[in-house]
Amino acid sequence: MVASDPSITIFGDWGTSRLRLYLRQGKSVLDRRDGPGIGSLTASPEQTFLDLVGDWREADPETILLCGMVGSRNGWVEAPYAPCPADAAAISERLVKVEAQGLTVSIVPGLSCVNPLGGPDVMRGEETQILGALALNPELKAGRHLLAMPGTHTKWVVVEDGAIASFLTAPVGETFAVLREHSILAKAAAGDAPATPEGFDLGLSRITDKGAALLPHLLFETRSRQLIDGLPKADAMGFLSGLLIGADAAGAAGWFGQLGKVALIGAPALNALYAKAIKAAGGDSFEIDGDAAVLAGLSSLSSSITRDAHVLA
Amino acid sequence: MVASDPSITIFGDWGTSRLRLYLRQGKSVLDRRDGPGIGSLTASPEQTFLDLVGDWREADPETILLCGMVGSRNGWVEAPYAPCPADAAAISERLVKVEAQGLTVSIVPGLSCVNPLGGPDVMRGEETQILGALALNPELKAGRHLLAMPGTHTKWVVVEDGAIASFLTAPVGETFAVLREHSILAKAAAGDAPATPEGFDLGLSRITDKGAALLPHLLFETRSRQLIDGLPKADAMGFLSGLLIGADAAGAAGWFGQLGKVALIGAPALNALYAKAIKAAGGDSFEIDGDAAVLAGLSSLSSSITRDAHVLA
Repeated sequence: MVASDPSITIFGDWGTSRLRLYLRQGKSVLDRRDGPGIGSLTASPEQTFLDLVGDWREADPETILLCGMVGSRNGWVEAPYAPCPADAAAISERLVKVEAQGLTVSIVPGLSCVNPLGGPDVMRGEETQILGALALNPELKAGRHLLAMPGTHTKWVVVEDGAIASFLTAPVGETFAVLREHSILAKAAAGDAPATPEGFDLGLSRITDKGAALLPHLLFETRSRQLIDGLPKADAMGFLSGLLIGADAAGAAGWFGQLGKVALIGAPALNALYAKAIKAAGGDSFEIDGDAAVLAGLSSLSSSITRDAHVLA
Repeated sequence: MVASDPSITIFGDWGTSRLRLYLRQGKSVLDRRDGPGIGSLTASPEQTFLDLVGDWREADPETILLCGMVGSRNGWVEAPYAPCPADAAAISERLVKVEAQGLTVSIVPGLSCVNPLGGPDVMRGEETQILGALALNPELKAGRHLLAMPGTHTKWVVVEDGAIASFLTAPVGETFAVLREHSILAKAAAGDAPATPEGFDLGLSRITDKGAALLPHLLFETRSRQLIDGLPKADAMGFLSGLLIGADAAGAAGWFGQLGKVALIGAPALNALYAKAIKAAGGDSFEIDGDAAVLAGLSSLSSSITRDAHVLA
């Protein structure tokens, strides 16, 4: 490569259930490879990474940057939580570097905070998506805004003047999954039809009408409506999802009025469910693509590494 | 036996996880035998029952009465739900009889209602305990009272003038169990120390201070307090239990003022946790032993069978 070419980078989003690696030149993705998550490795993280990188080494990457559970205690190397408030510069300062057969890999730290309920809270991976969302939506960089990141552990995040000020986690996706698979409420099996929108709407309307404080009591309707009303199982799964997502959004509704439109960052299908629930709780939202946000966030962080490198050189 | 001896009865409490049979003469328990629940049978319900009864047949039981999941669709024979309001007479009229090698076995029906939230609700087994609680506590027979039956599926029950008027189910025990065993929140293994009272008190105080509507958000503290504050796992399990039981009691608190002291019917250890949670939510409670209530309830129902038999003879 001649010196004027944009530099080659390898970016990775390495969570519990999935590794996604990108080979980039400047802002273009040249190639993408998927591997196992930190929770389902069959070799060491280092070996898994090197195997997947393979012939990308020949492109001579200037920067390699990974975010997510790869930096947890059970990951490759622990990147200790950085405290909030934290912006891109503060997070860049706490990147942890590890060598792997001559490659220098930088790992993004997670964040910790005292959340709005006064409890300890943590995130790992979402901080990178948030930085990306700010880069993709410059209007979020000034003033205070509320972001929602639906998922296994949904995060409600307050950003202030471009920094992550605080956040609150609700393990909604995980609660749904364990109740769906292991309780008598839905009794869903692996091959069952997916949750229906009709069921979701019914669950959402029940929790909206009766109030999120009655979630434990409304949960049982997931079963009793099957027994008594003949609700089909796929509707019952949607009902359970509507109750849980509805309760999550209702609990966060105190922020809507103060912080305006909620920026939803996640997978499109889940974003759509949260958009409904936020609306039912009196709020409004707009969507940011989660995969694009990860790449934009890694890009923000990598530019600071590259700057450092130039300074040192 | 001479005719003046009190009659011999076999009573059974046959739930999902346990069968408990009693051989009685009048009000005395002569013998007790335990067998597998409806959820873990290795033979047919009939065969399981006959094997356990064994030589009790020689005592020539006049009445055999079983309550619980034995009467569900997946039990021995379905005893369809009786609608609320229902008193002992109404439930007796709907006993379902089945023959087993010359023995006549009566099975108690469950109850259905439209619960106070307007949803369909069901119980099976608890109706017998409630009738027993009324028999053991005559002061509950006049006027309206609130009963709480903590368990896998906690029931909040309104009785009015000796009849079960309506009830509301919260699957608190089941939610605790699946989150404890299958989620990342507590990550408890079978051999782990049991949940601690200190953890329970902390969880209860968190949900009481912040409100039951924030249950989904407080759930994550079960994990984050371990990660950040070093909360021991046994305390984390107690914390999770305190959150869930606290949210259940807080949701039912609207009834406390109207209906006075809550009668708690269940296992002593669980009753004690609910007593704390009811107190934290502004109520007061007293305790009725659950096993004694089942026997008293079966006794109430069996006297009506015996009367019928006399009428027919």
